[in-house]
Amino acid sequence: MKRVYNFSAGPSMLPEAVLKRAAAEMLNVNGTGQSAMEMSHRSANFLPIIENAEANLRKLMNISDEYAVLFLQGGAWTQFSMVPINLAGVEAGAERKNAAYIDTGIWAAKMGGEAAKYVNMRCAASSKAQGYTFIPAAPPPNSDDAFYAICYNNTIMGSAWQSPPETGAVPLVADISSCILSAPLDVSRFGLLFAGAQKNLGPAGCTIVIIKKELAGKAPSWTPEMLRYDTHIKEKSLFNTPPCYCIYVIGLVLEWLLEQGGVAEMRKRNIEKAAMLYDYIDNSPFYIAPVQKESRSLMNVRFAVREDDGEKRGQLEKRFIAEAENEGLVNLAGHRLAGGLRASIYNAMPLDGVKTLINFMDKFRR
Amino acid sequence: MKRVYNFSAGPSMLPEAVLKRAAAEMLNVNGTGQSAMEMSHRSANFLPIIENAEANLRKLMNISDEYAVLFLQGGAWTQFSMVPINLAGVEAGAERKNAAYIDTGIWAAKMGGEAAKYVNMRCAASSKAQGYTFIPAAPPPNSDDAFYAICYNNTIMGSAWQSPPETGAVPLVADISSCILSAPLDVSRFGLLFAGAQKNLGPAGCTIVIIKKELAGKAPSWTPEMLRYDTHIKEKSLFNTPPCYCIYVIGLVLEWLLEQGGVAEMRKRNIEKAAMLYDYIDNSPFYIAPVQKESRSLMNVRFAVREDDGEKRGQLEKRFIAEAENEGLVNLAGHRLAGGLRASIYNAMPLDGVKTLINFMDKFRR
Repeated sequence: MKRVYNFSAGPSMLPEAVLKRAAAEMLNVNGTGQSAMEMSHRSANFLPIIENAEANLRKLMNISDEYAVLFLQGGAWTQFSMVPINLAGVEAGAERKNAAYIDTGIWAAKMGGEAAKYVNMRCAASSKAQGYTFIPAAPPPNSDDAFYAICYNNTIMGSAWQSPPETGAVPLVADISSCILSAPLDVSRFGLLFAGAQKNLGPAGCTIVIIKKELAGKAPSWTPEMLRYDTHIKEKSLFNTPPCYCIYVIGLVLEWLLEQGGVAEMRKRNIEKAAMLYDYIDNSPFYIAPVQKESRSLMNVRFAVREDDGEKRGQLEKRFIAEAENEGLVNLAGHRLAGGLRASIYNAMPLDGVKTLINFMDKFRR
Repeated sequence: MKRVYNFSAGPSMLPEAVLKRAAAEMLNVNGTGQSAMEMSHRSANFLPIIENAEANLRKLMNISDEYAVLFLQGGAWTQFSMVPINLAGVEAGAERKNAAYIDTGIWAAKMGGEAAKYVNMRCAASSKAQGYTFIPAAPPPNSDDAFYAICYNNTIMGSAWQSPPETGAVPLVADISSCILSAPLDVSRFGLLFAGAQKNLGPAGCTIVIIKKELAGKAPSWTPEMLRYDTHIKEKSLFNTPPCYCIYVIGLVLEWLLEQGGVAEMRKRNIEKAAMLYDYIDNSPFYIAPVQKESRSLMNVRFAVREDDGEKRGQLEKRFIAEAENEGLVNLAGHRLAGGLRASIYNAMPLDGVKTLINFMDKFRR
């Protein structure tokens, strides 16, 4: 079988040039006689790999020295615990601090739920009652909020913040797993950003954390050592063995991004791809995109067959997914909690993939 | 540069056949048109990969259905927190439970130190005062110990338990990061085993946990969700996105192990390799192996130049490391906390690598 167009929400497509380079270097990278999987993480062979990855990420995202960049493990779920414990955790018996989040989808709600183990977590706004079809207006934080959390791009629901909410002196925390490096983002507006690698960055198993250094170092004494940001900042992500091979592939993806023209160019391409797909859907009597136009994600295009009879719609969508797969267009099912259809079109999805999808959609409609 | 013999303690050498297969399958694995890095972890493409890896690990280690096998993230360090929190953690304000560990080296001591955040941790025996040159006799646990922890193979110190201590009804917990699958091990003697993949199993970034199911489910309410064994058992390691590509490579290594004849064959080869190296050192007037014979590791052979003048020894060892590297024998320095020299000879190190090292050692001596 030839390579497919993979519309998975994550893990997802990687640039073919990156995969080819990883394959070519598998037994011997940078003339070391070793695979990037085999290198001691403290060796002179591996250090340039992690250091270059950090330098290139700083360059691409314009990250200042006020922030630490960490390569951790455990995905967004681990950050859901680390953020409240490190930014607002208290010693056993002490009074809990307050914090807030905006409920824009399943992941935002999970982040809020996990944080509630450690802080008084207030849901400041929600679009849940409207099926998460838009990003609600963000009320200002309370002055005693320890942090204010959002999920910048809602992978399941197909919505995204178009700009960060204003939170003044209260640190803004954002899960950017499914939009990191898809367009320019003003890092200085945030206290902490995190992203699992498996959507726009590389293989699953590495989490990027970008944290304003002044926010670290206040975790309570009961914090598991691996969940302390200060521990990882001090050791430059080498407190323990990091996910070396993931970091190596992330490094290849970052080099590819620089070669392509960086995030400004990605934004241009991503707008072109998403607009083409949304325009087709909006102008079709057969398909519908449920997310309000001003809240739509460039990365995860959620759509459905326009059909009121739920059972009939389900059957059509099932057939859509199966026939698409036969044509090499895979993973177009919506998330099990959202239903319908979804095309995740991250940086690595070429324009041709979107064009091929639209051609298929039109053929299926007829 | 051609492939080197890599004596790194971890990440470390992988079988060349595995690397070649991973390279060949990089753009298209199992005829899916996708890389193993690109697959949705819930797709019909990935599920056989993780299921086969689990089945083959169960076969190789003879793991019964009483135990769950998990593919987690975060390395041994994350287990140092998960073990005490899940097996002995209490709600805030409740009385702490007791547990014990045997101090056989740096990693065992770290495991004990981290556990002391959550339980009354008793050091039941230690060989620290003797430079960790042997495995001390293990006193029986107290009846109220929630668990009894050991580090089965001491990567830094070059020592290893030759059989598990008897702990009766108290669950025995062991870090087997640097000896998993190197020789048969009676899993039924243990309550919980864990191993970072980066030594004998695959790339860094995945941790294998083998846990008696009855031990899970008692974590206190403040436990970070990702640190709950019951969460991962319930979701068969797919609670969140697992380190898919690491699991894929681990699967290739496990298939390779089965082809080679399994752990009984590995034990035979590992004894042959280690005996050859220890014999050479013991019979040499120039080198010395500090660990007592009955406590020696098959995986990590610690040695030094036999020279009382510390400065002179340091210079000789520095020259040894540099000259060895020139001959393609890399990462022979001892751990920074132990000094001296160390050759880690995991399953993937061929007999020829050990022979080449001995030839070099003899040339260097002369």
